Amino acid sequence: MSSHSIAFIGTGVMGRSMAGHLLKAGHALHVHNRTKEKAAALLAAGAHWHDSPGTAAAQADFVITIVGYPGDVEATYFGADGVLAHARPGAVLIDMTTSSPLLARRIAGAATAKGLNALDAPVSGGDIGAREARLVIMCGGAEEAFARAQPIFAVMGKTIARLGGPGAGQHCKMANQIAIAAGMLAWCEALTYAQAAGLDPAKVVETIGSGAAGSWSLSNYGPRALRGDFAPGFYVKHFLKDMRLALESAAEMKLALPGLAQAKKLYDDVAARGWEDYGTQVLYRYYAEQLRSSAE
Amino acid sequence: MSSHSIAFIGTGVMGRSMAGHLLKAGHALHVHNRTKEKAAALLAAGAHWHDSPGTAAAQADFVITIVGYPGDVEATYFGADGVLAHARPGAVLIDMTTSSPLLARRIAGAATAKGLNALDAPVSGGDIGAREARLVIMCGGAEEAFARAQPIFAVMGKTIARLGGPGAGQHCKMANQIAIAAGMLAWCEALTYAQAAGLDPAKVVETIGSGAAGSWSLSNYGPRALRGDFAPGFYVKHFLKDMRLALESAAEMKLALPGLAQAKKLYDDVAARGWEDYGTQVLYRYYAEQLRSSAE
Repeated sequence: MSSHSIAFIGTGVMGRSMAGHLLKAGHALHVHNRTKEKAAALLAAGAHWHDSPGTAAAQADFVITIVGYPGDVEATYFGADGVLAHARPGAVLIDMTTSSPLLARRIAGAATAKGLNALDAPVSGGDIGAREARLVIMCGGAEEAFARAQPIFAVMGKTIARLGGPGAGQHCKMANQIAIAAGMLAWCEALTYAQAAGLDPAKVVETIGSGAAGSWSLSNYGPRALRGDFAPGFYVKHFLKDMRLALESAAEMKLALPGLAQAKKLYDDVAARGWEDYGTQVLYRYYAEQLRSSAE
Repeated sequence: MSSHSIAFIGTGVMGRSMAGHLLKAGHALHVHNRTKEKAAALLAAGAHWHDSPGTAAAQADFVITIVGYPGDVEATYFGADGVLAHARPGAVLIDMTTSSPLLARRIAGAATAKGLNALDAPVSGGDIGAREARLVIMCGGAEEAFARAQPIFAVMGKTIARLGGPGAGQHCKMANQIAIAAGMLAWCEALTYAQAAGLDPAKVVETIGSGAAGSWSLSNYGPRALRGDFAPGFYVKHFLKDMRLALESAAEMKLALPGLAQAKKLYDDVAARGWEDYGTQVLYRYYAEQLRSSAE
């Protein structure tokens, strides 16, 4: 594989691992992050530091961004010292943040007007997927830009798909989060019921997990939740952001998604308990509170 | 394995396949069903016909019942020509209907009083699981009776677990249906969103199904629903019965299960459209109606 000069903006839990794989694969890496300390390990491993997204982008054939919220994406791309103002002609800009499909299309339009190429390519798989380069990468944008980015994606992910034009990657990620949302209620309610009925819930996970009730969430989050492990694989606060985006996007399309709406409502309650920095499996704790109160 | 005399009551879609496996395994089979025609293939293969549950039970070491609704279970066990009045001393009575945990305990109590042994052992896996002897069998009842029934279960199922005393099998089945219920909303909403967003929903199933959004329901029902195949693997009307039972049972335990309640509400609407004899994946069609109306 040929070596590229890559700007990597956003070195949080996900970005750090993803950028590390690119560095190991032999690419020259130009990094920027709001908090410089979080880029320390990458800098020690040979990445170059930049004080703004724009100066990093100015050095690169590929610009990858994975930041927090759509507002951060907007600032990173459209700011005076941002990516769009400073990227090299012909560069491929790849936003891997889970963000708004409409914003993805705005970025793509602005990029085309400047002779740049933009892709939206949010990921699924969490911190473990990022560490083990097993991410699902859901991409939207022009076919030619996707083809150019493919070898870069392959260093970070396992399942890599282009779903359509600009915004299609974000839409697919929304579908992914929607499929997870009501699914979290499903296994939490099943295990709460099992516990209330006096069954051994771990045995129930084992028994029903192998059949028609099986899901990734049940098998992966169920056992963690049952042993009281609520450490974040995926933060409640980030899941809430994603559900908010999905509900907004669904509303624009005049779609009623009652399962998603119900999940969002419960996670709002979870956050109101001060649990937004726990992992999403903390929803089980919320349900299980009913067991204590009914036992009192 | 030693050969037994087995009464099999209820030869519907599930029972027919299960009884067939027992016959093939060399057991003597005494069958009864409300509609005799549905037992024709079994009778042709050597099973003995009985006009009532009681006369079938009187011939057997093991009595297996898998009928429609809890009311049918009650009549089959407690009727004048029912199982409890006619079973041989020491026989093991196994109700494999998805039914009420409380009724299972009532049957177990009545059985013990008569020197009989009762197990509740509902199954998961649908018609395919029954045909291929790959059912998940969730059992409640005394350990000794379970041990005696184990070789019989092994002829019909793959995952066989005893979850506790009388009613525990029914409770585990309730947990199973609860885990499926909100999960059906999850994938239906994800694919409806994907379709509304202009993505190829089949490609979305493939892409997100391999990651954290993956579930048995998404991978098995998603593709069928997308090609308009709503033939019953599992009937809407039976799923509604199960959700009703689960909600009743949860209410007795003072548990609020909003995901389950939401699923029940939507399936009530599905049934109100006259779709109760379709498979549960017809929920996708219910959601997809929004696509047409918003396109108009």
